[in-house]
Amino acid sequence: MTTTAAAPADTTTYDTDLVLAAADAAAPVLAAQEGAERARWMRTVAAAVDEHRAELLDLAVAETCLPRAALDVEVTRTVFQLQHLADRAASPELLDLVVEEADADYPVAPRPALVRAALPIGPVLVFTASNFPFAFSVVGNDTASAWAAGCPVVVKGNPGHPQLSRRTFEVAVAALRKAGAPDGTLGHLTGVAAGTAALVDGRIRACGFTGSLAGGRVLFDLAVGRPDPIPFFGELASLNPVYVTPAAAQARVAEIAAGFAASVTGRGGQLCTKPGVLFAPAGSGLAAAAAAAMSPDDVDLLTDRIAHAYQEGVKALAALPGATVHAGGAATQAALVTIPAAEILFGAVTLEECFGPAAVVVEYDDPADLTALADRIDGALTATVHGEPADPVAAALVPALTERVGRVIWNGWPTGVAVTRALHHGGPYPASTAPSSTSIGADAARRWQRPVTFQNWPAALLPGPVRTALTRSAGRRG
Amino acid sequence: MTTTAAAPADTTTYDTDLVLAAADAAAPVLAAQEGAERARWMRTVAAAVDEHRAELLDLAVAETCLPRAALDVEVTRTVFQLQHLADRAASPELLDLVVEEADADYPVAPRPALVRAALPIGPVLVFTASNFPFAFSVVGNDTASAWAAGCPVVVKGNPGHPQLSRRTFEVAVAALRKAGAPDGTLGHLTGVAAGTAALVDGRIRACGFTGSLAGGRVLFDLAVGRPDPIPFFGELASLNPVYVTPAAAQARVAEIAAGFAASVTGRGGQLCTKPGVLFAPAGSGLAAAAAAAMSPDDVDLLTDRIAHAYQEGVKALAALPGATVHAGGAATQAALVTIPAAEILFGAVTLEECFGPAAVVVEYDDPADLTALADRIDGALTATVHGEPADPVAAALVPALTERVGRVIWNGWPTGVAVTRALHHGGPYPASTAPSSTSIGADAARRWQRPVTFQNWPAALLPGPVRTALTRSAGRRG
Repeated sequence: MTTTAAAPADTTTYDTDLVLAAADAAAPVLAAQEGAERARWMRTVAAAVDEHRAELLDLAVAETCLPRAALDVEVTRTVFQLQHLADRAASPELLDLVVEEADADYPVAPRPALVRAALPIGPVLVFTASNFPFAFSVVGNDTASAWAAGCPVVVKGNPGHPQLSRRTFEVAVAALRKAGAPDGTLGHLTGVAAGTAALVDGRIRACGFTGSLAGGRVLFDLAVGRPDPIPFFGELASLNPVYVTPAAAQARVAEIAAGFAASVTGRGGQLCTKPGVLFAPAGSGLAAAAAAAMSPDDVDLLTDRIAHAYQEGVKALAALPGATVHAGGAATQAALVTIPAAEILFGAVTLEECFGPAAVVVEYDDPADLTALADRIDGALTATVHGEPADPVAAALVPALTERVGRVIWNGWPTGVAVTRALHHGGPYPASTAPSSTSIGADAARRWQRPVTFQNWPAALLPGPVRTALTRSAGRRG
Repeated sequence: MTTTAAAPADTTTYDTDLVLAAADAAAPVLAAQEGAERARWMRTVAAAVDEHRAELLDLAVAETCLPRAALDVEVTRTVFQLQHLADRAASPELLDLVVEEADADYPVAPRPALVRAALPIGPVLVFTASNFPFAFSVVGNDTASAWAAGCPVVVKGNPGHPQLSRRTFEVAVAALRKAGAPDGTLGHLTGVAAGTAALVDGRIRACGFTGSLAGGRVLFDLAVGRPDPIPFFGELASLNPVYVTPAAAQARVAEIAAGFAASVTGRGGQLCTKPGVLFAPAGSGLAAAAAAAMSPDDVDLLTDRIAHAYQEGVKALAALPGATVHAGGAATQAALVTIPAAEILFGAVTLEECFGPAAVVVEYDDPADLTALADRIDGALTATVHGEPADPVAAALVPALTERVGRVIWNGWPTGVAVTRALHHGGPYPASTAPSSTSIGADAARRWQRPVTFQNWPAALLPGPVRTALTRSAGRRG
């Protein structure tokens, strides 16, 4: 990690209060705004990020060790995410409107006239991720989805890319002003003290987080420990297990090994969907083939802190009972170790995510053990099965996998996540602190909405966007 | 409170484990079952409750002090809720299915074929309420909605109606067996130790609670303090403020006073939607008129504990700064006190829910203060406005109210809740620990579901209900 200038100073208590006050003041203004209007200024922000692409990429390259080409694709993705969620903001679906007429004969008791609409939850605090300095940072998924819902956002900048964070904020604010969005639509904080102070401040109504298990749990505990606990949508850690059946190993072990090595090491293994464990038949040679496909070069990780944690993690993997080290003996290289399944089934081994280009291959003798092995994996974002048509080993795994992950993948790899509605990105803890929510795709906006029912309520007193939607749906009916 | 026999003994640690193991074993069976099949056995349970109405009512009358007529309506409501949620179980809407074809030209990167479906979250623990011994108890809303979603339920029986709880469980289990539902579909625990042990057990994947702020917060803290925190859907406390504009007071003060008195005292004031505070113009005479409409008889409350807490609550209301006691001097009667708005705006008065037939009338001099007063109220299930057509005082209140409650009511009363989809029953803390969720109506089932995405997944390996839904929707397309 190289920084190009002095890091921005931590936000003072005084300035943190100003940022929160601005978000609080913006909340009713955004809530009264039509979704289509928000979509317009979200697209202006997307265009501004695209316009400043070269300048922002320079900062990102200097601060993150990630290759420029990968960062360039990430900017494209970030621009698309803003547009995708702008579409949601402008969609009639956003309000999830339910309209019921009064019914004197309704079961149990007469029913009044009811209109239910999903309204913005209020100012949202976003803790940004180190590994996606654009797509999960200042104007990333959490921010874009909160804006789509109609919420002002206060971002806590990531210390892994402080200059980029600050500059992205400036670019976004200039675009928001140009487009006429209210002041306070986006705020920016630097430093742990400012972030935690904001998290326990009454003006913040929900929080999004993408990062480590340790850091995320501290923040989750603060959010739920408030006198008035707030929803905390945190994505913390995921092992993303891969299950290779004997039939699949027999049919295409080289292809699976190569795909696994690429998925483990892509982007330095610093992806929330990196496969951290693969279950392979003993004697298939899969681990050795995958290790051979991994580069022996030293790896460049996002920050010194992550590099240090990675080295400790690799040492821990090599020290697992029964471990054989196939790659990564130096702890600064991509790493692959194997352990026998018996160490998990009968030993005390619990596998945990090692952030970076490292993975464990668990070698099993009896395919009948696979389901029991699947039951030992914590909640995860994904699980992948490599199987063959009419493969009974694969079929037996399905209930255990669907029970504990958010996405199951057939004969592919969990890395490379499509930004689309049908892709759920979440899962039971520690994959997510809110397993029913997704942090990617249009439905990510649902996290920042709260239904409100209007009972026998005069149309003139409905929030503007609800009134507009009702008028439109009445027009469609008539 | 009178009990007719010895209370059931607390569930032992050994038996608690058996109950949890049965729920855990039932989870994959229910998850593989078609929603229509669950709907069938849910309707069988509804019919069984109806058949045993007289016997169950006898127990409820003996244990709760609630009038038989009110309990009889509640049984009808409980039967309807089971049917309403059975309809949801059988509806194609249950799975919230999103299907996307593979798209090589999708923005940023090619998109694989994706199917997203809302699947059951796993075994659910339900802490039942004292104030609705049927509708929020063993086969009440939480249980019915979890079944609709496809989750086994373990109920922690309420100590306010132990015999009824146990007997309802027996009736329901007999019906479930008759209808062919798997063992473990419903479990029952007695005692605080069993309930808290279940709450922190890894086999329980989510929890529902309806009850007091103090008790609910203890359980919420346990749920989010687990090594693997789980979603906790708790409904804890709500002031349900009522705002009467000067124009409304002038037009119909007697009608509003009578309605308020009835809403405060109905069912002994033991409703989560009881209006606990009303804001009225000073000098309108509304408080005196409402007090005059309240019975001076001693009130019968659900349990000795609730009666004791009520007496303490009424004393606290009478001791508020500037308080005038209009009704309830004896602390065993329905109670109404007034305080001047200045005590809230400039003093240190924070209003809290007093469970039982008691309320505060806050008298304001300047209607311009109403919005500031509304900002001092915690999150609530409801807020009610009594206003006149084109009433500017009412219009000014709307943003503050929609920001902090789940349902707003015009010229009516918050008590009397319709079981229907458009009625959202929830709100910011302490009304709910999960403000985006509802505990009443068809969408209550969403609390117990978790989306899972199937990527390039063979149709033959999809969970049965997803496969069925896909086949049907393909049929509709073709």
